[in-house]
Order: sequence, then structure tokens, then C-alpha cells
Amino acid sequence: MGHLVDRRRVVRVRGAGSPGAAATTRPDSLAVEAPLTIKAGETTIATTMRTPGHDLELALGWLVAEGVARSSSDLTELTSCDTDTVRVGLAPGVPVPQPRLGATSSACGVCGSDTIAEVLNRRPDRPLEVAPLIDAGVLVSLPDRLREAQRAFDRTGGLHAAGLFTPEGELLCVREDVGRHNAVDKVVGWALTHGLLPASNTVLQVSGRASFELTQKATMAGIPVLSAVSAPSTLAVDLAEEAGLTLAGFVRGDSMNLYAHASRVRVEVPVTV
Amino acid sequence: MGHLVDRRRVVRVRGAGSPGAAATTRPDSLAVEAPLTIKAGETTIATTMRTPGHDLELALGWLVAEGVARSSSDLTELTSCDTDTVRVGLAPGVPVPQPRLGATSSACGVCGSDTIAEVLNRRPDRPLEVAPLIDAGVLVSLPDRLREAQRAFDRTGGLHAAGLFTPEGELLCVREDVGRHNAVDKVVGWALTHGLLPASNTVLQVSGRASFELTQKATMAGIPVLSAVSAPSTLAVDLAEEAGLTLAGFVRGDSMNLYAHASRVRVEVPVTV
Repeated sequence: MGHLVDRRRVVRVRGAGSPGAAATTRPDSLAVEAPLTIKAGETTIATTMRTPGHDLELALGWLVAEGVARSSSDLTELTSCDTDTVRVGLAPGVPVPQPRLGATSSACGVCGSDTIAEVLNRRPDRPLEVAPLIDAGVLVSLPDRLREAQRAFDRTGGLHAAGLFTPEGELLCVREDVGRHNAVDKVVGWALTHGLLPASNTVLQVSGRASFELTQKATMAGIPVLSAVSAPSTLAVDLAEEAGLTLAGFVRGDSMNLYAHASRVRVEVPVTV
Repeated sequence: MGHLVDRRRVVRVRGAGSPGAAATTRPDSLAVEAPLTIKAGETTIATTMRTPGHDLELALGWLVAEGVARSSSDLTELTSCDTDTVRVGLAPGVPVPQPRLGATSSACGVCGSDTIAEVLNRRPDRPLEVAPLIDAGVLVSLPDRLREAQRAFDRTGGLHAAGLFTPEGELLCVREDVGRHNAVDKVVGWALTHGLLPASNTVLQVSGRASFELTQKATMAGIPVLSAVSAPSTLAVDLAEEAGLTLAGFVRGDSMNLYAHASRVRVEVPVTV
């Protein structure tokens, strides 16, 4: 059995934008995200970010979806080499998924890269700007403003959105996609074409969860604040912490959780005279 | 500007499991999902499933996340060749993302494959079983039963779930992951280790949306019914239609939408005597 959740320190903000604002620090449980490598013999045939646990089943199910395995008799070996690697042996006659040349990557920032280490260690040329400061009241207003800007949302319910805002809450660009990583890529591409990279004076609001991948895309674009409507993963928090990225999650109503570099968010707490 | 939504025929079921059950057919708007290939010159450097629109920005943003492009001056060309291909030209000195050997695939069923056509055309050896029939009342109960079975959900809010059920609603296996495709792979892997493939007498319930990828994973495992809490994409519906898969979406409360092969779902409509 794997390790589904892990604890991280979080700053919980309530009543953002009102005189009753409060910020408290406490531990919180997050879904674990960690890399897994699948090997056929010594050949790496797949890498993925996943929640640890049932790794052997994950490898088997992936082989089924690839059209490689149909039953246990297609396999001669199935071993967890370590916490991050599964090795499968394929029976004679079962086609080995070939190491692929060309057409091998995707807008999914993790898939298709040479090694997990290469992806984990990819960093922007320069550190993220310490500025800007953003008011907690502005930050909690972004999900609604993103939703309003999603022209297609009400018609399908099937599109993720990403929006780039100024620290004052002005919407610069909104993009939608069935893939949340694509929505972020589109926003970053827009910023590049407008000469805004590194986008050091912006906030990126996303409609879903904050994975490692989205966190990395924000840092590579020089965006110092990433805000998500739903939960971040452990690896997203760890990368944000290391890269100097402010990471907000569960940004809903007048509250939010700050998982890393909370100092960019200004919470107005009433001064008692 | 791209094509964010498209129309498909849907059977809308309300009051499932009660004497007042009703089923009506109407058109519905779905988020479009379609493949995009990104080329540097003649070399394919990325393939992704995306919602059409802002494809040039998508390609640019992906190059930023890969650490290849930082500003417009890193590019000499940026062209939409056709509706499914973007070509970029990289300035002298800008590293071309290399076609990668090894470590090139992922549990994301689409990423890392040789060609989009290969992925789109991947099909199981045998057609899906016409059986089973499943009561609409049972089908609408599965999301709650899946949620109950998610031990970690209440602690993180960050995990997708997939559950394999019998047509009578008995839970066979539930798995969780930060990636919904991983959760499905784990369930299919479990079925393989239990000698249940092709899983022709089962229903797969997922906690999120139904993408092309999940639809394909279900069909490759021989699962004849896929039920999702949220929306499917156009490509998911089209594959389900062609592959003989029953596809249910927006399965909530006592209602659901049936997007393909609704005949496996039995809606009890009261007989007036």
C-alpha cells in the first residue's frame, strides 16, 4: 500500500477582503504526487507522475491500454524495484513497447521527457521576482472573474480555464481547454507574443487543481503567484517552496490556503486602537 | 479562433430509479477535443489532445515550459499548417527539442505515442460485449458509492477515483490518484491480475470528466460501460459511439446524460394500466 497523503504547513486565510480577515497556520493533508518509471527489462518504456500505491497495477493497466498485455500470461515478471520503479517482463511473442523516436512529447509537461530527473530539475534562467504583493481580497475574487470570462463554460461544463491577472486583479488573458495544462500553455504563449515574459508582475488563476506540472509551467514563465480553485499536490507545494512561487489553493468564497511563499499575499487584519 | 464546443445527441434521464423516471433525447453542447501536432521544421516535437483555438499560443507556451523559448526573438516562424498542425521555426542558437529515445511515454495514454493516428486507431482485439444491461437507478448510485469508498478523499480533496462495479452495483475495486488516467490504469491492472480481462461484465465509474483517453482505456480493457460524474469531450463520445461503448456523463443525483449506446441502460418508465 502506498502513501496517498502527506502533510504540509499551510496558512489558512478566512474573511479575505473584509475587516474580519484572519490568517492561521496549521498542518494540512495533501495528495502525494511522485514520479514512477516503468521498465521492460532495462528499457524505460513509460514515466508518469502518480500517487504512490498499487504501482504494479498501474503498470499493468498502462500496458493494457497500450495494447501490449491482455492477461497475466503475457507477463513473466512484475517487480517493484524501488519506490519509484516497476519492472515488467514480457512473455515471448508479446511486443515490447519500442523506445520511440520523434513524436514523443506532449503538452503534458511531464510526459515524453528524457528522464524524470530532467523534468524535476528544469528551472527558469532567473529566480522569480519577490514582488508583487497582492491583496487577499483581490486573490479570492479571481476564480469568479475567471468563471465570468469563460464564454464556453456554461455551455459544456467540460472546459478548464486559466487566466492571467495583474496583482490589482485586472484580467489580461483567459484561455480554455479540455486539458488544464493546455489552458496554461495558451496563456503563457499569449504572454510571450505580447512581450510579457518573464511575467513577473502577474498572477495565474486556474480553474482546477494545482499539479507539479502547472507549478512548473508558472515558474518557467516567470509568474510569481499561482492560484488554484482546488487542491495542490505535495510535489506542487515542494516545487513552489523551492522555486519561490506563491501557491494558493482552495481559493473559494472569501477564504484560501497558502501553501508556499505566503508573504506575497497581504491580509488586512484590523488594527485595534 | 477555434471551435470550443460542438453538438452531439444525448439521452437525458431524470428520476432514475423512481416511478417517475423519464428519458428524452436532445442535442447537447460538448467541449471539443482534437489532436494537435507541433513541428520544428519537419520534425514533430510534440503531440497533444487539446481544444482547438489559440493553437499558436499553445505551441509557444509549451516551448516556454520546455525551457526552449523565452521571447519572440527565439522564433523565426510560427504557422498553422492546417487545423491540426503548428510549425515553429527556432532562431539560430535556440536548442531544438530533440526527438527522444527511451523514457518517452507516460501513463497519459496519448502522450509519447508515435503518431496521433496510431493512438486514435488503437482498438481492442474483439468488440465490446453487447451485454450487460444496467438499471438507470443503479448507475446513478455509483458516484456516491465511489465517493464512500475513497478513503483519502475527505482528507485531501485532491484525488481522482475510478471504481469497477458489477452491473448490479457491487463494487469490485476502487483506486485513487492525482491523475485520473492513473486511477483507471490501476483499476484495469487490478482486473488483469484477477483474470477479469476483458472485463465484459463490468461498469467503470470515474470521479471526473470523460476524455478520449479514459474512453480508450475502457475499451482496451473490454469494459462496456463508462460513467463519469462530469462532462465528456466530443472525441470521447465519438470513440464510444464507434467502439460500442455506453458512455454516461453528468451522473448526479437521480439524473444522467447518455452520450452513446444508451441501450445498455434500462430506464423503468411506469406502465399506465
